[in-house]
Amino acid sequence: MREKNRDFVGFFCPQSIAIVGASTGEYRFGGTSFLRKLQECGFPGRLYPVNPKAREVSGVKAYPDLPSLPEVPDLAMVSVPARYVPSVLEQCAAMGLTHVHILTSGFKELGTEKGVALEREVERISREAGLLVMGPNCMGPYCPGSGLTPWGAIPGMNGPLGVVSQSGVLTQRLTEYAASLGVGVHKAVSFGNGAVLDATDFLDFMAGEEEVRVIVMYLESASDVRRLLDTAGKVSREKPVIFWKGGQTDVGAATAASHTGSICGDQVLWEGFYRQTGVVPVRSLTECVDTMTAFCLLPRPGGKGVFLIGGGGGNSVVSSDTCIREGLDVPRLSGSTMGRLRQSTPQAGSIPGNPLDMARVFQDATCLNEILDLAHEDPHVSMIVVDRFIPRKAYHLKDLPDSTPAVIEGMRARGAKKPTAFTVDSDGGDPELAREGALLRSRFSKAGFPAYPSLARAARALAHLYRYTAWREKEVTRTGPPKA
Amino acid sequence: MREKNRDFVGFFCPQSIAIVGASTGEYRFGGTSFLRKLQECGFPGRLYPVNPKAREVSGVKAYPDLPSLPEVPDLAMVSVPARYVPSVLEQCAAMGLTHVHILTSGFKELGTEKGVALEREVERISREAGLLVMGPNCMGPYCPGSGLTPWGAIPGMNGPLGVVSQSGVLTQRLTEYAASLGVGVHKAVSFGNGAVLDATDFLDFMAGEEEVRVIVMYLESASDVRRLLDTAGKVSREKPVIFWKGGQTDVGAATAASHTGSICGDQVLWEGFYRQTGVVPVRSLTECVDTMTAFCLLPRPGGKGVFLIGGGGGNSVVSSDTCIREGLDVPRLSGSTMGRLRQSTPQAGSIPGNPLDMARVFQDATCLNEILDLAHEDPHVSMIVVDRFIPRKAYHLKDLPDSTPAVIEGMRARGAKKPTAFTVDSDGGDPELAREGALLRSRFSKAGFPAYPSLARAARALAHLYRYTAWREKEVTRTGPPKA
Repeated sequence: MREKNRDFVGFFCPQSIAIVGASTGEYRFGGTSFLRKLQECGFPGRLYPVNPKAREVSGVKAYPDLPSLPEVPDLAMVSVPARYVPSVLEQCAAMGLTHVHILTSGFKELGTEKGVALEREVERISREAGLLVMGPNCMGPYCPGSGLTPWGAIPGMNGPLGVVSQSGVLTQRLTEYAASLGVGVHKAVSFGNGAVLDATDFLDFMAGEEEVRVIVMYLESASDVRRLLDTAGKVSREKPVIFWKGGQTDVGAATAASHTGSICGDQVLWEGFYRQTGVVPVRSLTECVDTMTAFCLLPRPGGKGVFLIGGGGGNSVVSSDTCIREGLDVPRLSGSTMGRLRQSTPQAGSIPGNPLDMARVFQDATCLNEILDLAHEDPHVSMIVVDRFIPRKAYHLKDLPDSTPAVIEGMRARGAKKPTAFTVDSDGGDPELAREGALLRSRFSKAGFPAYPSLARAARALAHLYRYTAWREKEVTRTGPPKA
Repeated sequence: MREKNRDFVGFFCPQSIAIVGASTGEYRFGGTSFLRKLQECGFPGRLYPVNPKAREVSGVKAYPDLPSLPEVPDLAMVSVPARYVPSVLEQCAAMGLTHVHILTSGFKELGTEKGVALEREVERISREAGLLVMGPNCMGPYCPGSGLTPWGAIPGMNGPLGVVSQSGVLTQRLTEYAASLGVGVHKAVSFGNGAVLDATDFLDFMAGEEEVRVIVMYLESASDVRRLLDTAGKVSREKPVIFWKGGQTDVGAATAASHTGSICGDQVLWEGFYRQTGVVPVRSLTECVDTMTAFCLLPRPGGKGVFLIGGGGGNSVVSSDTCIREGLDVPRLSGSTMGRLRQSTPQAGSIPGNPLDMARVFQDATCLNEILDLAHEDPHVSMIVVDRFIPRKAYHLKDLPDSTPAVIEGMRARGAKKPTAFTVDSDGGDPELAREGALLRSRFSKAGFPAYPSLARAARALAHLYRYTAWREKEVTRTGPPKA
């Protein structure tokens, strides 16, 4: 384990936490809500609310200040007003409390002289005392494996993701969204203004975590872009870094300045950054989650040829257009595959080929499994997308039992040697259809096969998977395998 | 009413329908399923199954052939095998049955000499006898107002949409999707290969229908692009034509050839087509429905400045980026609006401005309504997007009653003078969240305010609305108002 990874244990696996600024009044965001969430998620360590005016907070004995605690806690979560933060840090330094998460906002992001000065003060004290600080203006650490889920999906779900983010709200949503698809988070950090520890520190940390297989970053700025570039380039050769840059437009950059006090820099610079580092650039929450799901669940593709299995002529046309636009290919199938398909598509209205337009596959799992076997044997096919359909009144289908279990069984038996994704469209304002769609997508994802609400979203995710794979192979050929 | 619109009454408001090729066997796609769906949707006219081997089909008296019918029906739906279609058309011609929908496939789309010859035969007979023919290879007419919903949303929902489409599956989905958001269809047609009546004929027809306020087209090819271009240009000046072109890539075009026998032509030509006609080009089902919902429900914007109301700093940054990329603007608010906002955003963590980052609006309808009033007075604001939030465990919110009814009440009282859309994110694999999200979006849409699953989708729809409005104003200034 890298040196820094040992250093960060206090953030992600604390045995004891001081919550500085937990109030006794009504439930509100801050120390109080963090304390309550830690209780709710069953955090197994010791909790110490710090509040000079309270004897207890939320049923837990409170202490007037940090020096009064019965031990030096592994971590302090600080939510006192910004002007008191420097003195809290000085107390931490004095007592040897090294890991601090500053939840409080009201620093550089205000854009005021006072805010900037206060943040400099935080930085100065921390550097002088060697404090490890997350923040200010952030949600801090998240680690399901150690019961530390004071925000985001509760209970947390452990898994292959490492999340490094400058937005608390986006990260909360990300952990919840991923968990609903059965994709867990090993460790996440919302680090806000990044006054002391910054994006590069946390990226480097996630790179050193063996359990983290896929890294997701949401970034508005970096204090040292050169250092981030070097680190991202190195890490990308070891594991994929899905990279979501906020503030890519002038207006977005101005917004970021008031969010995390970020100077976003030149967009042209960031385009160069993507090319040089091999990070996987995404532009929205859905694209981010779609992509990380593909990277977490799928093997790497051998090429960019996608076989599209579904029904409906218009769907097939539009799906072809979509894949081509995303930089994928929709290749002709091999002669032997076509021969077999012609035998199995005698019905009028079906069109053998790629895309395969064959409504029968929606309801007949045996037929679909045979076609998936063919696809796995066809050298022209590198990836597969299977459209699934929720039967309903609008269509001319027979009532048949749900074929999903048999499809999943077939997938498992075959072993996913070629990346295979599913699509289930349930968009719109029909609550029952939406519910069924989400359920079906989660069933596939939880079985290990990513499922998307549209072909457009599946194609984008697979295109990222293909491009990263091709980039990495080229890099490894050029410079040898990454060092462990 | 235009001449042609009177001509098409037999398609959309038939009093009697012959279903040629309804079989007595098990339920399957074709005459049988169409007959059953017409029964299911309570079609109020007379139904005549035609089948030489049956006495009745699905409880309805059957006739051996068309000449045996007790009357000349207004419409024939033909689903006999392709080789028998010419003789059925000759029977129609002989008895004065002028409106024919050919459901049967197996014509030009096969790409075989025989298929092409058979389609030419259909065309020749129809032209010589003056038959009006939809198809072959299509779902045909759909008209909720006359109880004619043999496919798509059942029961149908009447409304402002006119749909002209070369894909039955996409159109079925479109009608169902729109209905789930409270947006109805006045008339729709799936016209398949378009051997006799083609895209331009149906576009012209929809233009003449007073009740149709927004036209949606899914097109793979046109037999006469020059004629389509002239018509689309004229119609666009009267009402928006949302235009979804399938087969925009080489692979997509090849797929279209096997779907509807279409020769898609040069992509460059179509780009020119969009520019010259003022149609609103879309590229996917979701973009199509998102856009048509905006056009059906919203007034036209006075400019491209969007006011973004929501919460979360990261969300605000990303939302700004997204709007700018879509060609919208996220302008500074007026001084007086900013003054008022600063008064109402004293909470730490809130950021007054545009985007407005203020978690309080999620739960406090009074506060949101005040801000919406400000937005309506601010001359910098032309459009508004309000983010709505479904409270859940992942977040640090209080339990409060649902503020949606008060928000909708406020919107109605204000009158939507500026286009206002809502966003409700419920993506992922959580069935209950998905259900609640769809329900909330449908509540807003059904109240007259479009609601989208993401800001990206809202921004795209509003950008289309803005661009079409600007194009139309310029056109009208240039050439005078459209003729009624």
